[in-house]
Amino acid sequence: MKIVCLLDQGFEDSEFQDPYDQFRAAGHEVTVVGFKAGQELKGYRGRVSVATDRGIAEVRPEQFDALFLPGGSSPDHLRASTEMVEFVKAFMAEDKPVLAICHGPQLLLSAGVVGGRRLTAWRTIQGDLRYTDAEVVDEPVVVDRNLVTSRQPDDIPSFVSKSLDLLRARGATGGQAPVGTPE
Amino acid sequence: MKIVCLLDQGFEDSEFQDPYDQFRAAGHEVTVVGFKAGQELKGYRGRVSVATDRGIAEVRPEQFDALFLPGGSSPDHLRASTEMVEFVKAFMAEDKPVLAICHGPQLLLSAGVVGGRRLTAWRTIQGDLRYTDAEVVDEPVVVDRNLVTSRQPDDIPSFVSKSLDLLRARGATGGQAPVGTPE
Repeated sequence: MKIVCLLDQGFEDSEFQDPYDQFRAAGHEVTVVGFKAGQELKGYRGRVSVATDRGIAEVRPEQFDALFLPGGSSPDHLRASTEMVEFVKAFMAEDKPVLAICHGPQLLLSAGVVGGRRLTAWRTIQGDLRYTDAEVVDEPVVVDRNLVTSRQPDDIPSFVSKSLDLLRARGATGGQAPVGTPE
Repeated sequence: MKIVCLLDQGFEDSEFQDPYDQFRAAGHEVTVVGFKAGQELKGYRGRVSVATDRGIAEVRPEQFDALFLPGGSSPDHLRASTEMVEFVKAFMAEDKPVLAICHGPQLLLSAGVVGGRRLTAWRTIQGDLRYTDAEVVDEPVVVDRNLVTSRQPDDIPSFVSKSLDLLRARGATGGQAPVGTPE
């Protein structure tokens, strides 16, 4: 499947790199999209550096099957842009897989798409989410229909595992919800 | 008056330094409190570096007349600590001046003290605040009783000016609200 990763400076190094590597190892294509194409982005721990494949103005949500949102300072930078927020909204509206870890759910909060959903996030963002009518839980990984969320770097193995399960199920049914999932 | 500034790594350089200098120039004492005493903290733009005067475990809210919360990544780090959040709550509960700029109001959100208040913040935090019953406005500076809030570095002159007005008014009445302010 074609996964798009929205990214900006100050992402959490392992929350980008580990799922990125494992999604690709499982046969998925991952496109890194930032504010501009070819921009060098650095993780805040200084361990990972990546160049964006495309700029947000060059892509459309219809070109991708799933959305991946790593944590760190990146999500708060991205959500200052209406273009980025609208991009996220489109994936939630189409019920496409959205895989968000740590501060990643800040983009969902700004997109106004968490209402009635069950999810987790980094501890401080859990607090922000509790002002909405989402069901916020403190668990390593939460799967709610198209949405997979996790809290922190420690949760990466569970996050990747559940994300790959969801992508596999969606892939097997031509991008639609897996059989037996109420929609 | 005795002002306490809660600070951690990645603060917005000018949002700390400029008000800090101007509060001191106006005769106020500013104590920088972090997770530990003597810790070297750096602004995320790499222009300002400051050593904390005290650690949070060594201070009590009763020792200070006002609270100053600069922006950047610092507030999100601080609010992951219950001790920091409780410290902030005490200033709001006592109606002492709270001066918060940019991401600073994230600490107010985590402290659950924004209900019914009028305030502003960095644009992305304005969105988070809109899920509460606070009145969120997009203005350079907002004064609501004991609370002074601003959005970004551009707003620093207005932020400092209104903060100094409030401190002067409180100082003139022995730390209580200025005459004529309904409480």
